Amino acid sequence: MTNMTAAHSPLSSDLLIALQHQFTDRCSTSKSVREHHGTDESFYDAMPPDLVVYAQSTAEVASIMQLCHSYNTPVIAYGAGSSLEGHVLAIHGGVCIDLSQMNRVIAVHPEDLTATVQAGVTRKQINLEIKDSGLFFPIDPGADATLGGMSATRASGTNAVRYGTMRENVLALTVVCADGSVIKTGTRAKKSAAGYDLTRLFVGSEGTLGIITEVTVKLYPLPEAISAAVCSFPSTAAAVQSVIQIMQLGVPVARVEFIDTSGVQAINAYSKLALPVQPLLLFEFHGSVNGVREQAELVQEIARDNGSADFEWATHPEDRSRLWTARHNAYFALLQLRPGSRAISTDCCVPISHLAECILETQIDCDKHGLIYTIIGHVGDGNFHVLMLVDPNNPTEIANAEAVNQRMVNRAIAMDGTCTGEHGVGLHKMEFLIQEHGAPAINVMRSIKQTLDPKNLLNPGKIIHWDVVLEE
Amino acid sequence: MTNMTAAHSPLSSDLLIALQHQFTDRCSTSKSVREHHGTDESFYDAMPPDLVVYAQSTAEVASIMQLCHSYNTPVIAYGAGSSLEGHVLAIHGGVCIDLSQMNRVIAVHPEDLTATVQAGVTRKQINLEIKDSGLFFPIDPGADATLGGMSATRASGTNAVRYGTMRENVLALTVVCADGSVIKTGTRAKKSAAGYDLTRLFVGSEGTLGIITEVTVKLYPLPEAISAAVCSFPSTAAAVQSVIQIMQLGVPVARVEFIDTSGVQAINAYSKLALPVQPLLLFEFHGSVNGVREQAELVQEIARDNGSADFEWATHPEDRSRLWTARHNAYFALLQLRPGSRAISTDCCVPISHLAECILETQIDCDKHGLIYTIIGHVGDGNFHVLMLVDPNNPTEIANAEAVNQRMVNRAIAMDGTCTGEHGVGLHKMEFLIQEHGAPAINVMRSIKQTLDPKNLLNPGKIIHWDVVLEE
Repeated sequence: MTNMTAAHSPLSSDLLIALQHQFTDRCSTSKSVREHHGTDESFYDAMPPDLVVYAQSTAEVASIMQLCHSYNTPVIAYGAGSSLEGHVLAIHGGVCIDLSQMNRVIAVHPEDLTATVQAGVTRKQINLEIKDSGLFFPIDPGADATLGGMSATRASGTNAVRYGTMRENVLALTVVCADGSVIKTGTRAKKSAAGYDLTRLFVGSEGTLGIITEVTVKLYPLPEAISAAVCSFPSTAAAVQSVIQIMQLGVPVARVEFIDTSGVQAINAYSKLALPVQPLLLFEFHGSVNGVREQAELVQEIARDNGSADFEWATHPEDRSRLWTARHNAYFALLQLRPGSRAISTDCCVPISHLAECILETQIDCDKHGLIYTIIGHVGDGNFHVLMLVDPNNPTEIANAEAVNQRMVNRAIAMDGTCTGEHGVGLHKMEFLIQEHGAPAINVMRSIKQTLDPKNLLNPGKIIHWDVVLEE
Repeated sequence: MTNMTAAHSPLSSDLLIALQHQFTDRCSTSKSVREHHGTDESFYDAMPPDLVVYAQSTAEVASIMQLCHSYNTPVIAYGAGSSLEGHVLAIHGGVCIDLSQMNRVIAVHPEDLTATVQAGVTRKQINLEIKDSGLFFPIDPGADATLGGMSATRASGTNAVRYGTMRENVLALTVVCADGSVIKTGTRAKKSAAGYDLTRLFVGSEGTLGIITEVTVKLYPLPEAISAAVCSFPSTAAAVQSVIQIMQLGVPVARVEFIDTSGVQAINAYSKLALPVQPLLLFEFHGSVNGVREQAELVQEIARDNGSADFEWATHPEDRSRLWTARHNAYFALLQLRPGSRAISTDCCVPISHLAECILETQIDCDKHGLIYTIIGHVGDGNFHVLMLVDPNNPTEIANAEAVNQRMVNRAIAMDGTCTGEHGVGLHKMEFLIQEHGAPAINVMRSIKQTLDPKNLLNPGKIIHWDVVLEE
């Protein structure tokens, strides 16, 4: 895709020697290691950093940052590499700090429903480690991302409709700033009115304001009862209309996912399921035994009024797990629909009253332009993704898909929505961000970036253009 | 109390003339109006601004701000004057913008569960205006505060345990910046990963980074069933222990308030109630009829295991309303315990496992120093207030109370809690803030303040010291 190469100075040999001296075999200049760290799940070609260092503590990250600060060298934090918008690409070279070895759960406080972990702990790891406490951490952005990365991109996923996103679930962060100083942004208190909300400022800042090295998150008691169900609808509109009515009634569904017909086909083929090939909703209910039954009855009634088929229940944990694994693998399932293709993912989020309209107009646009695509959505939040399969060697096809994406973003913004519900900005959405927020707000963001990172060393070239002051 | 007078230049007569010309009778230099606007519910004596202007639109606020910016004149936003830490005191003089005439509900979107209001709309007003929609806005910081003020102080109150605080419930803001430019910080989408979270940065910034002129908030469906109950306990420890167990089980209580014995006495006398004179918890349950019954049974069982008396139920709306009005009037009730006194309010919030310990140690300290006080708390969040009655003419008494407060803050911070759960920093907690966050984080806050308000015009002298860089 777009060649993102930017002129940048090579890594200073003094810096290289200093880091190699300190980190020995946790320091790599190998081409394959660098290429791996210059790649994410997005459409972009690799943009490798000059050096990869594996840090094991906040102090080590601070020490790397201090060195890079004195050598004016860019620094990019790397977790699981599962970001989707080019977040980790080293477009100005520099040092990549791999945080995957910072994988220690520092403290679990079951009585307070909190845990503090190093940034490299993944969502599956934390859930495994707290399994016996009767608690769980709900945020699940498909991939087994790290909690540091999920904080940095303000991730969410299927459970967000009930439990919120990383915005609502991070209590405090430890952050290494541009000059190597270390701050703590909060405490374990459930709420606070103590000064500027630095926690929320760093959540979603994609490594451009500081490097998150520790995360304190909220945990939740495992519900007494969980049940999941699949339900087919005659049309996208009927499925989405059901969701709108469910949300308006305040039914506390834990998950409600939309999958369109082609998505169902892809998932059936990839995950060996036999879901009815129609638009469908995937529900999960959490609560007491009676509460779950009550929610399910209410939701079935609404769905039936919108012409749905009967619910197919998955009450056994293994059936539920198979269903959600299939959902989480939708991205990979889709890729199989067109061998050799790559996927361009989109990520709009609109007020739910506009959701059906936004999805339907987007479907029409995709069909009109002959795209191979599927739409899946965290529809309880008004968030959906169009996954478009393109031939990576066909620039016309790519331009076509990007144009559909641009029109979808226009549509979402006109409906008072956002260009990204959960994937973040990275490289891919910098122009959309300007369109969404407008020049004055972008200028405020830029001034914050310039203050907290005056040398433009922290994941430079992402989220906002460093030196372009927009005319207001 | 402390004399907060700071040297400041008188208002420029040119600026005065310009504002009087534009705002005519919505512009006042009268002593009583100025004194009213230089006072909040805190312990501080009035520090009047030089001028009060009543704005009616974002454009008017922007126009005032532009003028004040060019005349280097401080600007303080004023809503209902119900802040508790000296937030609105004009310690450097300047112009107070009274936003109470910005009291228009701009749009209600019942289908999306959102409303957008001008900053001067109060929490009671919005609930009145949406009464027929089947929705409500839950955040209730006792006073009938404005939504602008509540956003600016990151307010919460009794419903926060279930519905969150202003941090979780503001979707977007319109903000007038220091130079008079206007930004929108978000959309009506329920979630977004689009750039730095400016919404959360301004929520809780107490008018020091910009002036909030419009607020988009989340609304909630009125629950099908609501019931409230009062329950007495043999001791503070037993009451708090019950709350800890309830939270750990994940019971979605809508409200759970603690009132100590002296608080019950004060409320009984002030609100003509006959609550048993023992530590008590006040519960409210929201949900379906069955859900409420189930929650109530579970909670009663836990309370009983901790030695509680039976629940006294208030199922009729008028009984419930009387109970919650009594709770909200606790502050005024308490003042009656000692005619002529004034109250110093504290506002710690700790991880819930430390709550009993924190309250008990604080009670011992208060008793040891002969204070007249009561403790009330939003205990589901780990948040409690000690209201200490002091003779405003007795400096020893005041110093004594402040020393107890200081020790309580030390205690809360040592327990990984915060010096303010919901009241904010204002003037009163600036030193506590440093203690809580440490020098590096405070320096980050200061750099943000200096960037967004380079002339130090926005509510100067609050939250952080403008020019004191702390040694790291």
